[in-house]
Amino acid sequence: MQRGYFLTVEGCEGAGKTTVIELLSGYLSALGHEVVTSREPGGIEIAEQIRSVILDTKNTKMEARTEALLYAAARRQHFVEKIVPSLEAGKVIICDRFIDSSLAYQGYARGLGIEEVLMINQFAIEHTFPDLTIFLDVSPEEGLRRIHSRKDREINRLDLESLAFHQKVREGYLILAERFPERIVSIDANGVIDDVFVMVKEHLERFLRKRQ
Amino acid sequence: MQRGYFLTVEGCEGAGKTTVIELLSGYLSALGHEVVTSREPGGIEIAEQIRSVILDTKNTKMEARTEALLYAAARRQHFVEKIVPSLEAGKVIICDRFIDSSLAYQGYARGLGIEEVLMINQFAIEHTFPDLTIFLDVSPEEGLRRIHSRKDREINRLDLESLAFHQKVREGYLILAERFPERIVSIDANGVIDDVFVMVKEHLERFLRKRQ
Repeated sequence: MQRGYFLTVEGCEGAGKTTVIELLSGYLSALGHEVVTSREPGGIEIAEQIRSVILDTKNTKMEARTEALLYAAARRQHFVEKIVPSLEAGKVIICDRFIDSSLAYQGYARGLGIEEVLMINQFAIEHTFPDLTIFLDVSPEEGLRRIHSRKDREINRLDLESLAFHQKVREGYLILAERFPERIVSIDANGVIDDVFVMVKEHLERFLRKRQ
Repeated sequence: MQRGYFLTVEGCEGAGKTTVIELLSGYLSALGHEVVTSREPGGIEIAEQIRSVILDTKNTKMEARTEALLYAAARRQHFVEKIVPSLEAGKVIICDRFIDSSLAYQGYARGLGIEEVLMINQFAIEHTFPDLTIFLDVSPEEGLRRIHSRKDREINRLDLESLAFHQKVREGYLILAERFPERIVSIDANGVIDDVFVMVKEHLERFLRKRQ
């Protein structure tokens, strides 16, 4: 049995990950692939328990490195129970966020250091990086606009803080795209979804040609 | 304020850690030090929550690397909330087991690899290793004899498996003692506690002289 493909979709809030994953899943299914989509903790009981420790609002003393180790632990269990079996069964698994989210958000934007966060995540995934990572690169302003579009209001002070943070996350992703050019493709995601998906498809087809 | 000392006591089950820590604590208090004793998770709420995920008997799918990351996460929080503040307050903190337990048990005896487990734990403790680690080196047979001494029975098949595992743990500790000779002292702990503590005291006094 040929091993499947491991795809991840990354980007800031409002980048359009959910829609792109739906389209990708449909496109790959139409090509005859068996597709699984997931996002951590992905219904994995142990990963859900770990996530509930992370998200427990009473845990105000949660330190940044504790949190990073807990995310890596939840990732490990989801990886072992869901990603690896899918790949071994020859399926295509598309994951909404994976290691690069930890690197961009915690490693870079929160200041823990990309190298340090990479190290504990390599332990978690035993160097099984995604085969292809699609980074949907949206400007922080456009991303926030999309998030808030339903609320129909002006950007406020809190959003401006958020804007600076989103800018850092984007910078983090750009650093990662330079560091892992063999697997991460950056796609301009500021336009309408049809245009974005045309570019996603081009990269996907190039990837599939190389693998066949 | 002068930073305190960070001491850890390590060893297999039945090595006599608890008794040695009591004696050490009394001895250092008599010398005028303010002494705190602890063991992970040490009553730290977040570390207790993490530990309960690890120990939950329903979590039979818990993978070895997930577990190692969870131990490192619990260690991090105990470290930040208890060890660092004690050191900054100039106290002596004596910890019953610390990083070397993970390295000997999970890294070596369980086969994850000392280097790999060291890596995630260095992330957790930010290279703040203990100032002095006392490894109480008891033979696996003697350790098991002490554990079972109250039960007054012959060693059975299960104990023999346990014997092989204890032997691996001991080997792991011996490797660590060679790797970190500047902080780990091995003490023959097969004898009676009074004799063992004489040796512990000698190493402690040598350590204190160097630090003063």
